[in-house]
Amino acid sequence: MDAAVAYAREHAARFLDDLKVLLRIPSVSTLPEHKGDVRKAAEWVAADLRRMGMEHVEVIPAKGEGHPLVYADWLHAPGKPTVLCYAHYDVQPPDPLDEWVTPPFEPTERNQNLYARGAVDDKGQLVLQLKAFEALFKTNGGKLPLNVRVICEGEEEVGGEQIAAFVREHPDRLKADFALISDTEMFAPELPTLCVGLRGMIYTELEVRGAKADLHSGMYGGAAPNPFVALAQIISELKDREGKILIPGFCDDVQAPSAEELKAWKNLPFDEEEYREKEMGAPKLVGEKGYSTLERTWARPTLDVHGIVGGFTGAGAKTVIPAKATAKVSMRLVPEMTPEKSFRQYKAYVEKIKPEGVTVDVRLIHSGAPIVIGTDNEYVRAATRALKTVWGRDTVFIRSGGSIPVVGDFEKYLKIPSVMMGFGLPDDGLHAPNEKFHIPNFHRGIESVIRFFEEAGA
Amino acid sequence: MDAAVAYAREHAARFLDDLKVLLRIPSVSTLPEHKGDVRKAAEWVAADLRRMGMEHVEVIPAKGEGHPLVYADWLHAPGKPTVLCYAHYDVQPPDPLDEWVTPPFEPTERNQNLYARGAVDDKGQLVLQLKAFEALFKTNGGKLPLNVRVICEGEEEVGGEQIAAFVREHPDRLKADFALISDTEMFAPELPTLCVGLRGMIYTELEVRGAKADLHSGMYGGAAPNPFVALAQIISELKDREGKILIPGFCDDVQAPSAEELKAWKNLPFDEEEYREKEMGAPKLVGEKGYSTLERTWARPTLDVHGIVGGFTGAGAKTVIPAKATAKVSMRLVPEMTPEKSFRQYKAYVEKIKPEGVTVDVRLIHSGAPIVIGTDNEYVRAATRALKTVWGRDTVFIRSGGSIPVVGDFEKYLKIPSVMMGFGLPDDGLHAPNEKFHIPNFHRGIESVIRFFEEAGA
Repeated sequence: MDAAVAYAREHAARFLDDLKVLLRIPSVSTLPEHKGDVRKAAEWVAADLRRMGMEHVEVIPAKGEGHPLVYADWLHAPGKPTVLCYAHYDVQPPDPLDEWVTPPFEPTERNQNLYARGAVDDKGQLVLQLKAFEALFKTNGGKLPLNVRVICEGEEEVGGEQIAAFVREHPDRLKADFALISDTEMFAPELPTLCVGLRGMIYTELEVRGAKADLHSGMYGGAAPNPFVALAQIISELKDREGKILIPGFCDDVQAPSAEELKAWKNLPFDEEEYREKEMGAPKLVGEKGYSTLERTWARPTLDVHGIVGGFTGAGAKTVIPAKATAKVSMRLVPEMTPEKSFRQYKAYVEKIKPEGVTVDVRLIHSGAPIVIGTDNEYVRAATRALKTVWGRDTVFIRSGGSIPVVGDFEKYLKIPSVMMGFGLPDDGLHAPNEKFHIPNFHRGIESVIRFFEEAGA
Repeated sequence: MDAAVAYAREHAARFLDDLKVLLRIPSVSTLPEHKGDVRKAAEWVAADLRRMGMEHVEVIPAKGEGHPLVYADWLHAPGKPTVLCYAHYDVQPPDPLDEWVTPPFEPTERNQNLYARGAVDDKGQLVLQLKAFEALFKTNGGKLPLNVRVICEGEEEVGGEQIAAFVREHPDRLKADFALISDTEMFAPELPTLCVGLRGMIYTELEVRGAKADLHSGMYGGAAPNPFVALAQIISELKDREGKILIPGFCDDVQAPSAEELKAWKNLPFDEEEYREKEMGAPKLVGEKGYSTLERTWARPTLDVHGIVGGFTGAGAKTVIPAKATAKVSMRLVPEMTPEKSFRQYKAYVEKIKPEGVTVDVRLIHSGAPIVIGTDNEYVRAATRALKTVWGRDTVFIRSGGSIPVVGDFEKYLKIPSVMMGFGLPDDGLHAPNEKFHIPNFHRGIESVIRFFEEAGA
């Protein structure tokens, strides 16, 4: 047996314990009160990189208000390729808290799963990289089979400004032949998967203001503009009941997947009824006519509302016409749409359809470009060989409906392809209460990264 | 000078101090954590009634989960009419807290106004009744010029179930010739006003559910139903952009005001531009075509959304498709609409227009019938004489867009008319941050009630 894999198996329990330590740090990047925790998570990652033998380990302070990056490298494999390893140590907010079976920042094992906010997104996948490095260092005389750079961020859940700026400004410090992105999932249990496409996004706020102060709906109802009603009117005109986005020109630049890709998707083991019933638990799947569910979630733009701030949300009744209401609205983009043009179209349309009696402020919170990676390169091939060894099956190529903006930046500024090799499962509950990581996938993820590096450095 | 009025003037400073004591009790009836405070307010009212010489003073415990009532009487004026005095000691929640100039439960004087939650709605108006009783007792040998019953409640802001049940079940204990309701406002400063019409209301919750748990909008956006989008679609079909309610049959029973009433409204000192600009501060008044602003707010049904619970409402971005969202939606009703029929029509329509992929639960939180009081009775005439003495001007008769369900119950179960004599001002900010009561109106309100009782008992 491969020595590094043997080492990983021997130290499996400790590896999992180390992950739990990181999961206990509530590094919620969007909440200012957790700023110190995001830094703590960065320092934990840096300390682990130092301990195993990485060099130039550095917690790079944020410029301005953001969260730090973590950099490290080991570049002593002359003639071998260089991999740039990416993952993130920030997490989504844990709310709604009352829906967690066990507290989000007390990692708990149940049924071969580890439950915690960030278990799969993305601390579990970050730590499996770290443990692969360690296993290779320890069983290879302090060496790695290829050159490695590591860049981890703490702003993935809030737009990733720091890493975007760093990639743009210091492409020399991240020079590599390819990237390994550990932030995606497998299409189905036991099915080794590489993700080769990501949707982009624009995340916005629509702030609608009516009267200067809250008004009594008895006194003023019938004459006063109601920002919630106005938002409802705006939102109902952004997307029709079948999910078609109504913003003029918004879908003009959408490039359909190739016939070959669509055919491969049809062969994926996808049970739409199980997806609806078990994974989603919704009465009915919705979406644009004429597209399959995978097309709708991977290859079509979408629009969602995440919450509306303002007004009365306590128990019972308060008869107020709120002065303002702010909707959080995001749109997912697909190639060849661009965030800039999409936001421009959206803003102009909202301003045009806004009802009388209110003002509307359309704000861009963050954005990322969509991307499609080609499968025809040696690193993707090395990854599929590694996955075959560990999982015993051929790799499937999928897209993801989510966004990893850094993949676009690596392509644009470093001119390197990304291998998106992830070990999440469809029911892991990313961003939801009771997020989990399937523990066997954590361990086989470590083995997959070990084998991938051995293949890429062979 | 009238002895009781002289007494009231002499004790004006103490009267205001007493009001401040009551205002410091955060008796927010809709919030369970303030249940004890509502009771404390009830006990404060009862203690004041006892101190001045009222009899049978009783804090009547709530049935079930609600808040207590306060009852008192003094029935030793044989041959004189009996007045049933009503006010409420519960208040609206103070949020949004950060918009208050001074804290909502620390009453503060500025520019002849007293700022506090409940200052005008309704503690100031409750206390002015108490102080009128006291002035009359103290200057009349411990007697009042007419028989008085007092019934105060602590649930006016949450539907008034306790008082509704009490009126229905114990009409004998509230037997009277007329009621004095101290919970309304003057049409303009210095303009003595009696309110002779109230809108009714139904306050509802629309709970929309999509998936069983929150989902990541990247993974599932395009296939998963979004409860916020569904709510927007529903709300946008409840009311059109001109404020016309689209629920089939909803407006069928609306009875237009008489030609005489409409003419009187036209003569009121109403400056629409000032109302829009200074009082409301909105870019534009909205509302149904073909109706004046007073008709829209007094004599037409309306629909408002007060808040939407659920989803992500923190700072920044969270890309979640929430499992559920609950809108707080109320409709104001006018004669001859009924809450029962209106809710039935609304619920049936919502269930019909709900988008696919979600379930919707339509709940009635509370309701009250609309009412119009005739002006042709001796108590209204006595009130106008009293107001003329105190304010030096003829009374105007207006309606209110708000709801005081107890007025309908008094009419239905006690068969008595209500005199709605209130001293709030249009800019007092009911239900809003920085609610206030104009201090001179508090004192002249006391004098008005004194004179009214003297006129009614003459």
